[in-house]
Amino acid sequence: MGVQRKLDVVLDSVKRLLRMGATANLVNLLQKQHPADLAQVFSDLVERDRQAAFDVLVERNTRLAMEAASELGPEAAAHLLSDRSAEDIAHLLQELESDDQAAIVDYLPDDLSSAVRDLIRKKEGDDVDSLLEYAEQTAGRIMNPNVFALSEDLTVGESIAALQSARDVEMVFYLYVMDGRRHLVGVVSLRRLLLVSPETPLKRIMTADVMSVRVETDQEEVARMVASYNLLAIPVVDEENKLVGIITVDDVIDVIKDEATEDLYRLAGVAGDERVFTPAGESLKKRLPWLVVNLATAFLAASVVKLFEGTISQVTALAVFMPIVAGMGGNAATQTLTVIVRGIALGELSWSNTKKALLKEALVGLGNGLACGTIAAFGAWALQGNPALGAVLALAMIINMFVAATAGTLIPLALRALKIDPALASSVFITTLTDVFGFLSFLGLGTVFLRYLHVV
Amino acid sequence: MGVQRKLDVVLDSVKRLLRMGATANLVNLLQKQHPADLAQVFSDLVERDRQAAFDVLVERNTRLAMEAASELGPEAAAHLLSDRSAEDIAHLLQELESDDQAAIVDYLPDDLSSAVRDLIRKKEGDDVDSLLEYAEQTAGRIMNPNVFALSEDLTVGESIAALQSARDVEMVFYLYVMDGRRHLVGVVSLRRLLLVSPETPLKRIMTADVMSVRVETDQEEVARMVASYNLLAIPVVDEENKLVGIITVDDVIDVIKDEATEDLYRLAGVAGDERVFTPAGESLKKRLPWLVVNLATAFLAASVVKLFEGTISQVTALAVFMPIVAGMGGNAATQTLTVIVRGIALGELSWSNTKKALLKEALVGLGNGLACGTIAAFGAWALQGNPALGAVLALAMIINMFVAATAGTLIPLALRALKIDPALASSVFITTLTDVFGFLSFLGLGTVFLRYLHVV
Repeated sequence: MGVQRKLDVVLDSVKRLLRMGATANLVNLLQKQHPADLAQVFSDLVERDRQAAFDVLVERNTRLAMEAASELGPEAAAHLLSDRSAEDIAHLLQELESDDQAAIVDYLPDDLSSAVRDLIRKKEGDDVDSLLEYAEQTAGRIMNPNVFALSEDLTVGESIAALQSARDVEMVFYLYVMDGRRHLVGVVSLRRLLLVSPETPLKRIMTADVMSVRVETDQEEVARMVASYNLLAIPVVDEENKLVGIITVDDVIDVIKDEATEDLYRLAGVAGDERVFTPAGESLKKRLPWLVVNLATAFLAASVVKLFEGTISQVTALAVFMPIVAGMGGNAATQTLTVIVRGIALGELSWSNTKKALLKEALVGLGNGLACGTIAAFGAWALQGNPALGAVLALAMIINMFVAATAGTLIPLALRALKIDPALASSVFITTLTDVFGFLSFLGLGTVFLRYLHVV
Repeated sequence: MGVQRKLDVVLDSVKRLLRMGATANLVNLLQKQHPADLAQVFSDLVERDRQAAFDVLVERNTRLAMEAASELGPEAAAHLLSDRSAEDIAHLLQELESDDQAAIVDYLPDDLSSAVRDLIRKKEGDDVDSLLEYAEQTAGRIMNPNVFALSEDLTVGESIAALQSARDVEMVFYLYVMDGRRHLVGVVSLRRLLLVSPETPLKRIMTADVMSVRVETDQEEVARMVASYNLLAIPVVDEENKLVGIITVDDVIDVIKDEATEDLYRLAGVAGDERVFTPAGESLKKRLPWLVVNLATAFLAASVVKLFEGTISQVTALAVFMPIVAGMGGNAATQTLTVIVRGIALGELSWSNTKKALLKEALVGLGNGLACGTIAAFGAWALQGNPALGAVLALAMIINMFVAATAGTLIPLALRALKIDPALASSVFITTLTDVFGFLSFLGLGTVFLRYLHVV
């Protein structure tokens, strides 16, 4: 039975038990699930059921309930907790790692958030609080401050003993080694400890050249390092090279997913943090500004058409085919743009190879323009019975698709040079350009060759 | 000095040394780099320089050269090797893990590929060959068959001794436990071995409930499991539950990146395996079919406009504003579509919550339509001096943006139900729909209220 199939069965049972009010059975069922599976089940429940299931479970197995909530994402977790008192929330949050705590506290309503933060600070020092002081999307924000590290003066035997008595530390596959002032000086893999005699000083077997990131390093850079060097974790240091935290590969996977979503969203004009079930009002607020910007550019394109009203009134067939020119330019530009933006994100495009990329895209644009233009010419001829109209359509499409391809390459690269996220702004510029240029070339050529088009 | 900055310096030096023909210095410099960094440097070099640098390095440090080539991606690696003899390639490939070997062999020209495969089979058994027998994008294809596993009859002490003598095995952080017939029966973490006495039987401390995937499991499903259960590796078993390989988290990261690229590309009508420097001819062949499909749908939309040629000839202002209705519908639909497609990919959307998503998107579509329609109405009034035209524009936009939002939700969900990738086909359907519906509603309303529009 596949994982998905199994979860569907669990989901159905949860719904049934909720309906029946069979709390004891419900808790029994929920307790048997992995937190990630529970999160999946929660996300499939309607909001009221999800809250009810969470409330039941949290009384009986606080850790599991909180872990599942955390897996759902910090926003959803904050929502599940938001009806409770600050004291209650602070108490429940203790079940989680401090990086997860910080993420959730961030999403609570403002008053509650600061009250909870005060309580947590009183209770367990300021791990969570200090995490929240780092800028969003930095290593400091996503790291776990609870990192297992050893003094360089220990022997291998002492290190193994320390490891045996350590509880609840994340990722003890790499052991980081510090000097007397907590400076990160080396790393030893757990496996290496097994290969040498217990009296060996740690200093002798550690790798001194340890990769690390700074607290202010962008999370995308962290992800890139972990991915390209195939690391399982990377230590985080402050400006004095003191070890302050660890970022593990599972956090990096979340970052990679979020960044991919962000790129995808930005190309479509959607805010990076929007999800399927973001409330309608919020989604509207997030999407409308981008639509209004597009509306403004659409009016720009419309005013180009307006310049040619005289021509259109003489040959209305031009109005029939003008959306084809603009639309096909837009499609070709989107293809180019997507390849280029992803190439930038994956680090495949650098300054040195820009010319090569431009040349390639220009060629592809020209080829696509020739092919599509020719097909469209025959289509228009068949539909309208006028070969001259077909020729004008083909020529306009070739021009516009060539422009689309070169602009689709240059605009994201230019935006990157200006330190603007190419995924964010490129598509608006490109749409405007292909619309304006499409109408201009088609209606312009139509005006020039007007006398050949009259014979309809 | 940041990583990128450092690599730029290395890149400049490599170029200089290549120009000077200073082979010894070049090898010295290259040898100091991490394979991932070398791959980055290689990718920034023009093709001739890349080949020259690789050829120099491969003579002196075969492993590093091959690892860097492999990091560049199997296609690029195959290209770097393609001028060599089959014997030579088979020899060089030995430096790599068999999953990486298989990926590269796959991209060699056909003749060379089968010759190399024969040679490898003779040399080191059929690990590589059997990997190639699994379907693409399955666990079997991306797994490493070289997995470290122990017999359940061993003690902890014997296991540690086995571990100490094992060389070159991937990821020995989890130790998989097999019965006498290689059936996967349990897992022990390396850390756990350290916590118990050497005489303890492995059987007693292993976790019997070990998560695994089958060779034919889709790589996306593998990635989802590793990510949601925060695993560092997952064992791969055959149909008899015999352990045949391991997939590590670094492979999973590659899968996640590739799948994100694929989704992004499919929404834009680009083939998943296209990269920035795919040759122009190949790119053209990959992109043109999608453009031709779009061209056909554009003609469909054009024939809707053609129905209203009579109306347009009386009020040419309709031709000015009709692209706005279609375009804004398209923009709104793209936003919805992106959120829904990503929601499906991230597993946030299931059957049970579809209605909720639809309701939300319909509301957002209506809200966006009202807002944008109102703005556009005033814009058209100002531009054209006719309030009735503004009203018709607003009404058409509200209708079209509402349709766009509901269709943007339903179409990807319907495609998923039909087992068609929603990212692949949704955007064509949506564009057609918003164009056809946009023209139909605007020009239709224009025809109905024609007598109010004449007063220009």
